[in-house]
Amino acid sequence: MIKAGIAGGTGYTGVELLRLLAVHPQVALQVVTSRADAGTPVSQMYPSLRGFVDLPFTHPDQARLEQCDLVFFATPNGIAMQQVRALLDAGVRVIDLAADFRLQDIATWEKWYGMTHACPDLVAEAVYGLPEVNRAQIKSARLVANPGCYPTAVQLGFIPLLEAGVIEPGSLIADAKSGVSGAGRKGEISNLFAEAADNFKAYGVAGHRHLPEIKQGLQRVAGGKEIGLTFVPHLAPMIRGIHATLYDRLTREVDLQALFEQRYANELFVDVMPAGSQPDTRSVRGANCCRIAVHRPQGGDTVVVLSVIDNLVKGAAGQAVQNMNIMFGLTELTALNIVALLP
Amino acid sequence: MIKAGIAGGTGYTGVELLRLLAVHPQVALQVVTSRADAGTPVSQMYPSLRGFVDLPFTHPDQARLEQCDLVFFATPNGIAMQQVRALLDAGVRVIDLAADFRLQDIATWEKWYGMTHACPDLVAEAVYGLPEVNRAQIKSARLVANPGCYPTAVQLGFIPLLEAGVIEPGSLIADAKSGVSGAGRKGEISNLFAEAADNFKAYGVAGHRHLPEIKQGLQRVAGGKEIGLTFVPHLAPMIRGIHATLYDRLTREVDLQALFEQRYANELFVDVMPAGSQPDTRSVRGANCCRIAVHRPQGGDTVVVLSVIDNLVKGAAGQAVQNMNIMFGLTELTALNIVALLP
Amino acid sequence: MIKAGIAGGTGYTGVELLRLLAVHPQVALQVVTSRADAGTPVSQMYPSLRGFVDLPFTHPDQARLEQCDLVFFATPNGIAMQQVRALLDAGVRVIDLAADFRLQDIATWEKWYGMTHACPDLVAEAVYGLPEVNRAQIKSARLVANPGCYPTAVQLGFIPLLEAGVIEPGSLIADAKSGVSGAGRKGEISNLFAEAADNFKAYGVAGHRHLPEIKQGLQRVAGGKEIGLTFVPHLAPMIRGIHATLYDRLTREVDLQALFEQRYANELFVDVMPAGSQPDTRSVRGANCCRIAVHRPQGGDTVVVLSVIDNLVKGAAGQAVQNMNIMFGLTELTALNIVALLP
Amino acid sequence: MIKAGIAGGTGYTGVELLRLLAVHPQVALQVVTSRADAGTPVSQMYPSLRGFVDLPFTHPDQARLEQCDLVFFATPNGIAMQQVRALLDAGVRVIDLAADFRLQDIATWEKWYGMTHACPDLVAEAVYGLPEVNRAQIKSARLVANPGCYPTAVQLGFIPLLEAGVIEPGSLIADAKSGVSGAGRKGEISNLFAEAADNFKAYGVAGHRHLPEIKQGLQRVAGGKEIGLTFVPHLAPMIRGIHATLYDRLTREVDLQALFEQRYANELFVDVMPAGSQPDTRSVRGANCCRIAVHRPQGGDTVVVLSVIDNLVKGAAGQAVQNMNIMFGLTELTALNIVALLP
Repeated sequence: MIKAGIAGGTGYTGVELLRLLAVHPQVALQVVTSRADAGTPVSQMYPSLRGFVDLPFTHPDQARLEQCDLVFFATPNGIAMQQVRALLDAGVRVIDLAADFRLQDIATWEKWYGMTHACPDLVAEAVYGLPEVNRAQIKSARLVANPGCYPTAVQLGFIPLLEAGVIEPGSLIADAKSGVSGAGRKGEISNLFAEAADNFKAYGVAGHRHLPEIKQGLQRVAGGKEIGLTFVPHLAPMIRGIHATLYDRLTREVDLQALFEQRYANELFVDVMPAGSQPDTRSVRGANCCRIAVHRPQGGDTVVVLSVIDNLVKGAAGQAVQNMNIMFGLTELTALNIVALLP
Repeated sequence: MIKAGIAGGTGYTGVELLRLLAVHPQVALQVVTSRADAGTPVSQMYPSLRGFVDLPFTHPDQARLEQCDLVFFATPNGIAMQQVRALLDAGVRVIDLAADFRLQDIATWEKWYGMTHACPDLVAEAVYGLPEVNRAQIKSARLVANPGCYPTAVQLGFIPLLEAGVIEPGSLIADAKSGVSGAGRKGEISNLFAEAADNFKAYGVAGHRHLPEIKQGLQRVAGGKEIGLTFVPHLAPMIRGIHATLYDRLTREVDLQALFEQRYANELFVDVMPAGSQPDTRSVRGANCCRIAVHRPQGGDTVVVLSVIDNLVKGAAGQAVQNMNIMFGLTELTALNIVALLP
Repeated sequence: MIKAGIAGGTGYTGVELLRLLAVHPQVALQVVTSRADAGTPVSQMYPSLRGFVDLPFTHPDQARLEQCDLVFFATPNGIAMQQVRALLDAGVRVIDLAADFRLQDIATWEKWYGMTHACPDLVAEAVYGLPEVNRAQIKSARLVANPGCYPTAVQLGFIPLLEAGVIEPGSLIADAKSGVSGAGRKGEISNLFAEAADNFKAYGVAGHRHLPEIKQGLQRVAGGKEIGLTFVPHLAPMIRGIHATLYDRLTREVDLQALFEQRYANELFVDVMPAGSQPDTRSVRGANCCRIAVHRPQGGDTVVVLSVIDNLVKGAAGQAVQNMNIMFGLTELTALNIVALLP
Repeated sequence: MIKAGIAGGTGYTGVELLRLLAVHPQVALQVVTSRADAGTPVSQMYPSLRGFVDLPFTHPDQARLEQCDLVFFATPNGIAMQQVRALLDAGVRVIDLAADFRLQDIATWEKWYGMTHACPDLVAEAVYGLPEVNRAQIKSARLVANPGCYPTAVQLGFIPLLEAGVIEPGSLIADAKSGVSGAGRKGEISNLFAEAADNFKAYGVAGHRHLPEIKQGLQRVAGGKEIGLTFVPHLAPMIRGIHATLYDRLTREVDLQALFEQRYANELFVDVMPAGSQPDTRSVRGANCCRIAVHRPQGGDTVVVLSVIDNLVKGAAGQAVQNMNIMFGLTELTALNIVALLP
C-alpha cells in the first residue's frame, strides 16, 4: 500500500483527488491538510465523501507528511516550493498539482507568477508529468510537476502535428473554453453562479499563465523550432470540462487521422475519435480521458483539432493519479477505469 | 422629473434599479453611491448600462442624497436605519429595499437581524410597500419598507385565502425555491457557479429571516388569527426567479379560481392564470409580475397555490419602482410595462 | 458471471445501466436492444462508453434475450409486460425499470397508464424492488419491479415516520423537485435546454403517475391506515437529482434523529445525515445513495424531511443493479461503491 | 401606425419579435400565423405575453397578410420564398428572418440549403439587412434579407479590419460559440437540457450554412479580394448569446482601437468597448447590441476580435425591428432602447 498524503485538500483539485484515492486499491490515505479548516471532518465539508474518508483536515504543522510515501500538493501556487525539499530529503516522493515546478525557465516563472522561486535546483530536477510525453522519466522521478488543465488539452492536440512537422510552428492558435471549476473554490464575484451562468466570455486575452507552459511543452516536441502561439481562454457556463479548438496551417500533405491514431495507439487515456467526430466535454466528465478529433474543413490547408478533457481529472487529479500509478509501478488504469457520467 | 438617488448601487438590486430607472421617463438619476467602488464609472462595473448611465459611483460622504426627491436604499441590512432620519428631515422620501423597516416588532427584528435598531420610531411610521395591500398608505408615505422577495411571492399567494377565511391559519406551508441572485453579489463559496449549478438544496430550514416578515403580513389580513407557518426556502440553479408552492387545508367550500381572480381583478402586476395552469418562473423574467395559479389536487381538501415572481423585479427593484410611481402620483405601469424575456 | 441483457438501451436509464454494468466484475453484458438504432455501435451513440462497451444495439427480434440469466427492461411503459412471460418461462430473471409491474391494483394501473395490462398474474408475483423494505423477497424474486425515482426518494423519507406511527397518515405532503433527465431522452419541446434552463415550474399538480405508487408503498408500512398524500413534482434546471421535501404533523413526541438513524442503521445506500443537515443533490450525483435529513422547524409539530437521490442511480439504474446484486447473492456494494461527482 | 404581420410566430424568433413589437409605439400587430397551432391564443403558448398580445395564432390560409404594411417571416427556410412575390405585388414590404434571400449566388444557396430556389429574381432585388453596411438600401427596400446570427457577430467584428485592408483576407478564423436557442424551438434530442447542459462541443466543423453568408458579406467590404475563412461554431450551455472570437494576421501597423471606434462612431447598436475589454454575452442579453473589443496579444502580429450579440435580438428579431424602423423612417432606437438583463 502506498501511504499517501494530500497537502491542501479543501479545493476542487483536493476533493477530486479524494474521490479517486478513496477507492484506489493500493493507496492508504494518511492525511489531508488544511490550515483554515483543521479539525473539520473532510466529509463534513464534502458530504459526497461520507463513508469513504473518515479523516479530519489536519493542520500542516501537525501533518507529518514526511511519513508518507507520496505527497500530493493541491495547494495554491507558491506553497509546494517551500516544503518539497524537506520531503524529498526524507525520502518522500512528490506530485505538485500547482504550477511551482512546471516552468524550467526560472525567470519566466517568476515573471508570470509574481514570486521569487524558492528552489530553482529542484525545478531542474522536476519531471513534467505529461505521461504521453515523459512516461519514462516520470517512472523514476522524485518530483513530478503535474501539468495545468489548458496545457494538457492543448498539448495533446498539437503534439502529433508538431512531432510530425506538418504545421507552421510559428502561428498556432488555441481557442480554449473552460468550465468554472477551473477557477478554483474561491469566493470571487466573477465566479458566482449569478455572474457566470447563462453567460460566455473570454478572459486573459492579453496573457495567461498557461501560455508559457504550453509553449515550453510544444517547443520540446517541435524539434527546437520556435513556437508562436495565440492562446485565448474563455469561461463557459459549465462546472467541468475544457474544450480546446486548435488551428494552424498545414505545410504538407498528410493523413491526419492516421497520424493521430498512430501517435496515441498505446495511450490508454487519449482517445482519437473516428474521422468527422466532434467530441463533447460531457463524454469525459469524471473520466481521466482526453478525446481528440482532427478536421480539415473543406479540404483546405487549415487543420482544426478538437480536444476535450475534464479539467479536474485528466487536467488535474486524474493525471496526478496516473502519474502516481506510473511512479509506483502500478497498472496505469488502477482507480482510473472510470466511465464518464453522461448525461 | 423626480430627482432620484440610489444608496448602495453595486449589488444586484442596485443594478436592477438602474436598469429600470435608466429608461424611466419621469426620473432624473442624480447619484449612485458605493463606498468600495467610488470613482468607478457605473457602466464599467455593469457594461449592460453603457450608454444609459453615465455616472460614476459616488462615495456616500460626497453623495448629497439630501438634494434628491427620493432615495432608494439598496444597501445591506442595517445601513438605511442609520441615514434615513436625516433624509426625511430634509424632505427626502425613502424606499428601503433592505429589511430595516419591514418588521413592526422591534424585538423580533433585533432577534432575527442580530443588531440593535437605530430608530424604532421610524419603523412605526414606515409603510410596508406591498401595493396590493397598502396602496393608499404608500401614496402618502415618507418612508416605504420594500418587501422581501420570498415574502412578496408567499403573501400574494396566501392573501386571497386568508382574507376570505377559507383555510386553517395555523398550518400554512410555504415550500419556496429561489434563484441564486437572491443571495446577493457577494463572494461566498456556496454561491459559486461550481457549487450551485446542477444542484438543488434546502437552506434555512431551522429559521429564515423572511419567516417573521411573512407571518406579520399574513397576520394582518387574517383578521387577527394567529398564523402558523412552516417556511422552507431552497436554492435552485437559476439566476433569477422565485417559485413558491403553498399548501394548506381548506375549511370550507369555495370557488378558488373566482376568489383569486376577484381579489386581483384590479391589480396590474398580479396575473391570476387560468384554472389548471402551472406558471414557470421564466414567464416573469425581467418583468414586474407575480403569476399565480390555484389548484385543488384530486378535489381533496388541500389547496395548492403556485406563485412565481422575478426576485429582482417584483421581489425587489420593480416593486420599489412601482412604489415610487404610487408615491409620486404616476401611472403604476410607468417604466414597468415590460414583457418577460422568454426564452 | 451473470449473463445480462438490456432491453431498450438508448434512453438515459439504459446508458446509466451500461455505465454501471460495464465495470461490474460479475456481469458479462450479452446484448443491448434497440428497435430504432439496431446496428449502431452503442459507443457511437454514447462516446462515454468507448473502450467499455463494444456491442452494437441489437434489434429485439434478434436479441435472444432468453439466453441471458437476467434481463433489465429500460423500455417505455407497456413493453416489458409483453415480453416478460416468455423470459420467465425460459428461466430468465427480470428487472423492469419501467412501471409495468409496480402497482398491484390492476385497475389503478390501467387508469394511470392508459393501457390494458397484459399479464395481471405476473403483477401479483412481481416484487417491488425497494431493498430497504423488500430485501428478502427480492433475493428470490424472478421478477422485480424497480421503483420510480420520485417514489424512491419520497418513500425512504416517510417510511421511518409511518412505521413508527408518529405522524398523521392522512395529510402527507411531498414537494418534489427533479432534474430534467427524469423526463427521459425524448425530443419534447418542454425539455429543450432553451425551455428548461434558468427556469422552474411545477407540473402534474392535478395528478402524477408516481402518486399511486407512493401511496401503495406507504400504505404497506403504515399498518393498514389510509394514506392521504399531496404530491407536487417540479422541474428544476439541472441534469440529475431529486430533492423531496416532505411535510407532515407529528402526533407524538419522538427523537426524530434517532428514529431515522436506527431505521437505516444497516442500509448501505441510505445515509442519515447529522442533525441540522441540509443535503444537496450533488452529494449523490452518480452515486447509489439516498441522503436524508430530518428537521422540526422551531420545535413545532411539523416534521420536515429532506431526501435526495440521483434519479438515474438510486432512482433507477443503480437501484436495479443493487437488486441484481441481491438476487444473485453478491455483496450489495459490488459496482456501486461510487463516490459522488462533486463538484 | 405600421400594420405588421408575423408569418410563423411559434418559434424563438417569433416570440422575440412579439416581445419587441408588443411595446413598439408605431406598430399595430395584425396577425401571427401558425399552421400547427392555429386557434391557440398566442399568450397561451407564451404566458410572458399575457396582457400584451391578445391575438390567437391564425392559419396561414386565413391570415390576409396582404392587408399588412409589413410582414416578418419567422418561418423555417424555404417558406418565405413561396409567398413573398404575392405580398410584394400587393404592396406589402417584407423582412425575412430566415435564409431564403441572404445569398446572392443561387447555386450556392441551393447547394447549402438543399432546395431549388423559387424566385431567383427576388433574391437579386433583396437587400441584405445589416444596417451598418446597407442602411441606405434598406431604407427603400421592398424585401430585406435579415442576416443570420453568426454572420452578424462575425461580420461586425471583421468589417473594420477588411475595409481598412490591414489583415490577410485569405486566412480568417472565426471561432464562434452560441447559446442553444440558436438551434430553434424544435424537439431535437441534441438540444434537450439533459444533453446540452454542463456540456460544450463544436458542430458543423466540416461546413455550416452561415459560412457562405459570412464570406459573401466580407467579400463585399474587402474590395473584391478573395476571402478565406475557417468557421467553427460551438454549442455553449446557455439560452441566448453568441460570442465570436476572431483571429487573423495583421499586414501592417494600425491603431486598432481607433480604427474600430471610428468605423462604428455613428452606430447606435455597435458598442466598441474600451481597450483591454472582454465583453460577456450577458451584457447584451435581451438588447439589440453588438459589443466588440479588439486585442493584439503580446503585441504580436495576430489580431483578436471579441464580438458578442444576443442571437435572438441583434442576431434576429431586434435587427429585424431595426430594419423596420429604417424602412419606415422611424428613429432606429424606437422600441430598441433596451438595457440588457444583467444578471
